[in-house]
Amino acid sequence: MSGVLYGVGVGPGDPDLLTLKAARVIAEADVVAYPANPHGHSLARTIAAAHLRPGVAELPMVMDFAPDRRQALAAYDQGAAEIAGHLAAGRTVAVLCEGDPLLYGSFTYVLERLPGADVRIVPGVSALTACAGVAAQPLVQGDEALVCAPATLPEDALARLLAAAPACALFKVGRHLDKVARVLAAAGLAEGAVCVVRAGQAGEARLSLAAAQAEGVPYFTMILSRRACR
Amino acid sequence: MSGVLYGVGVGPGDPDLLTLKAARVIAEADVVAYPANPHGHSLARTIAAAHLRPGVAELPMVMDFAPDRRQALAAYDQGAAEIAGHLAAGRTVAVLCEGDPLLYGSFTYVLERLPGADVRIVPGVSALTACAGVAAQPLVQGDEALVCAPATLPEDALARLLAAAPACALFKVGRHLDKVARVLAAAGLAEGAVCVVRAGQAGEARLSLAAAQAEGVPYFTMILSRRACR
Repeated sequence: MSGVLYGVGVGPGDPDLLTLKAARVIAEADVVAYPANPHGHSLARTIAAAHLRPGVAELPMVMDFAPDRRQALAAYDQGAAEIAGHLAAGRTVAVLCEGDPLLYGSFTYVLERLPGADVRIVPGVSALTACAGVAAQPLVQGDEALVCAPATLPEDALARLLAAAPACALFKVGRHLDKVARVLAAAGLAEGAVCVVRAGQAGEARLSLAAAQAEGVPYFTMILSRRACR
Repeated sequence: MSGVLYGVGVGPGDPDLLTLKAARVIAEADVVAYPANPHGHSLARTIAAAHLRPGVAELPMVMDFAPDRRQALAAYDQGAAEIAGHLAAGRTVAVLCEGDPLLYGSFTYVLERLPGADVRIVPGVSALTACAGVAAQPLVQGDEALVCAPATLPEDALARLLAAAPACALFKVGRHLDKVARVLAAAGLAEGAVCVVRAGQAGEARLSLAAAQAEGVPYFTMILSRRACR
């Protein structure tokens, strides 16, 4: 394979949070690939839209991850095979990824399917730091440790992770909100926790845990907690 | 205070990893503040240099954090007092911060000194994702949890944190390398650990732990580890 494979982080949603490098790599790529839902919508492509060259070859990987993980992995199999063909033909392929490519990024599924590729990563603004920015409070400072964990984990695993460090960021809270709220309450962290919904997207907001429980939250919700530890 | 205080992440070192938003906010600010060392050098200002308006008011906060934490905190006290004056006069102040402002960012020290300010955060590419990009390997995927911890922590604290999650990122390794290597070896993680030095800066490299120990590493070194867990 002689073409270059770029994993490009496009940030959490605001097109203004693309890096200068991401904008350039996307504009210069021969092929632009991205995950898309069954309706053909791709958040990653929407974020990057202003930088795609008119007429550039596009490679949507159509999937619906939540209900059918096997179908999504098959979509990555097929996408990776098509990307391998482009790389073998010497083409540069930019794979767009919401947030950062390597921090819970969809690009990790492409990367593990193309072990021989000449890979370059363009890191992006992650949901982690974007959500902290909406909350306008430090994630960690100085000697503090931080746990990042998906809210999909079982209750006891989440409880152990919360106990391990003074600060935590829980990803993809969505329908796991009540479970997460129980774990935070048991750890004495419910009062100080901040819930950030749709960071960098329309409807971006910062809520208390109680308000979030009253209103319900979307899939793209993060809960941040930091214990006073000085 | 009627001016707006921006905490602006300028990324890990490569000026190309600034976001479009950071470039615009810096170019439009009335005052640009940043930490600087006693020789007047500021990595954050160097990264952002192309975007400062000629003649814009600059506010360096001169400090030498490593040897004298109290002097550094006094520099933040003084810087925050000057920033408060600018905000009271209705000026927009952009505080530059290497990496992201809120993930071990110097901006957290400014933020906690200006509790009444109208704060907006421009998240940046963090050292965390930049280092993973140099290593070109996933930090975490799917249901995995990740621990971020400064290598300055005591050996037993690091050992407990490594045991808590399948993946970890250890920040600011520098002179703590031998301690970190002992902890990783005891956890059976020495073989798979990757050491990234100077991500996004001149001399950027990816090393095995053994090579890093043979060569020695600078302050800006991160060690990444991810246990196979499927």
